[in-house]
Amino acid sequence: MTIAFLGPAATFTDLAVRKAFPTEDRTPCLTIPRCMDLVVAGEVDLAVVPLENALEGTVNLTIDYLYHEANLTIIGEIIAPIQQHLMVHPDHAKRWKEVEKILSHPHAIAQCHKFLHNQFPHTRCEQSTSTAAAAQFISEHPEYRYAAIGNALSAESYQLVIAKENIHDYTFNHTRFIILSKGENRQIDLPLKKTQDKTTIMVTLPTDNPGALHQVLSAFAWRHINLSKIESRPLKTGLGNYFFIIDIGQKMDEVLLPSAFKEMEALGCKVTVIGSYSSYLI
Amino acid sequence: MTIAFLGPAATFTDLAVRKAFPTEDRTPCLTIPRCMDLVVAGEVDLAVVPLENALEGTVNLTIDYLYHEANLTIIGEIIAPIQQHLMVHPDHAKRWKEVEKILSHPHAIAQCHKFLHNQFPHTRCEQSTSTAAAAQFISEHPEYRYAAIGNALSAESYQLVIAKENIHDYTFNHTRFIILSKGENRQIDLPLKKTQDKTTIMVTLPTDNPGALHQVLSAFAWRHINLSKIESRPLKTGLGNYFFIIDIGQKMDEVLLPSAFKEMEALGCKVTVIGSYSSYLI
Repeated sequence: MTIAFLGPAATFTDLAVRKAFPTEDRTPCLTIPRCMDLVVAGEVDLAVVPLENALEGTVNLTIDYLYHEANLTIIGEIIAPIQQHLMVHPDHAKRWKEVEKILSHPHAIAQCHKFLHNQFPHTRCEQSTSTAAAAQFISEHPEYRYAAIGNALSAESYQLVIAKENIHDYTFNHTRFIILSKGENRQIDLPLKKTQDKTTIMVTLPTDNPGALHQVLSAFAWRHINLSKIESRPLKTGLGNYFFIIDIGQKMDEVLLPSAFKEMEALGCKVTVIGSYSSYLI
Repeated sequence: MTIAFLGPAATFTDLAVRKAFPTEDRTPCLTIPRCMDLVVAGEVDLAVVPLENALEGTVNLTIDYLYHEANLTIIGEIIAPIQQHLMVHPDHAKRWKEVEKILSHPHAIAQCHKFLHNQFPHTRCEQSTSTAAAAQFISEHPEYRYAAIGNALSAESYQLVIAKENIHDYTFNHTRFIILSKGENRQIDLPLKKTQDKTTIMVTLPTDNPGALHQVLSAFAWRHINLSKIESRPLKTGLGNYFFIIDIGQKMDEVLLPSAFKEMEALGCKVTVIGSYSSYLI
């Protein structure tokens, strides 16, 4: 089996894929749409991409591409802790406090805001396309006295020295990654701790019914179906037009969820089941 | 009166401020938090920052900073159409099709995706911190054969030549800007077309009541109070914890809205009214 993931090698996505699929082939892709396109085209079996971070929120590109472009199914979810380290080229290991610039993905920079503010108040931070790309740049440019922020795998992969461990501001930070497949029936069982079952749907409300969202939530509430998340995204048809992503805290059943979805459709909603799957914790 | 806005000069925010406050002093700030900090510190009277784009969705930094950091009130909203143009240094006006690189804010690049894909399939796009910063770079570097994407004001301000007008993919694209002030009672009347009244609230749900969001929406639904938007953002306390931003389609009244908010608080919600204001269209 081949798995496309948001690369390059040694990103947090790569880290999640290595834990979830230790013996499968991995194909790094430079963008989230590219990962999904490869599954749609049948060139790989699965794709793993980030969906949501506890601090930064939803990865809009993942949601938007799933809604507008790629007809794929979520067959599993991996929740991984995010630990950021400061790393430098071995040539600068002893004098790492004197780095002139710090490179990383904007989210990683934001996640280490307090550390950077206290330890490197006058050092410029520069955005890279991923934490792994920052590590790669450092490894290829020993002539610059730069540092990167990233995970332990990227330090190891690019032979960098971790100058300071765990520099992230909040210890509870996690990222949700989703596993995408073509077709609905693929089952996977990962060598990780299974925590809960979920069903994710996307709902577009009728434009002529301002109370429709309340009706949708009522359809779940009276059945005592728990929702773990509800989020709106623009439909890209004009300001004020949204679709909703709803995470339901159980797997698809034979009666309750199908009935709720049918009622929502009868109210004029468009309901798409994006997946019914298990969530795993690294 | 002095108004801080997301700069530099000639950004889309600047364009909105010039239309809304043609005779007031303007102070450009390089970040959204900086605009708000100046109002909190009393160094300026108002701040104008982007809140939402029809294609890209909510500006998370604006919402998060309003929720977590800045105690400010929305006293008005400006909705402006977004028109993107391709501009070059006058030295390259005739051979603009041969530019080697195109600079702009990532949202502007995304908004012109189809144009760029068709007309410049092999030209590299580079991200800048704003459309105006891209225009400024072009004006200061005639030695590079680069182009920028931005608004007409930035072409004029930095003496660039518009090589191709209206290169954005969707003509309905608009951005919502909010006007922020300290204190609740400031009234403004802008020389623009007033379209509707709104009240914006932020709601944190009790963690031990999974049906609370449905109850919140019920409190509005049975009173026939229309909601024009509901969106979730992470509370930054762990994956799965959110607060909600709700736009209500009317101004604060004496009875209905205060009663609804009181009921929500009795259910364990934290309700903060961020503003009750008029929306204006440019």
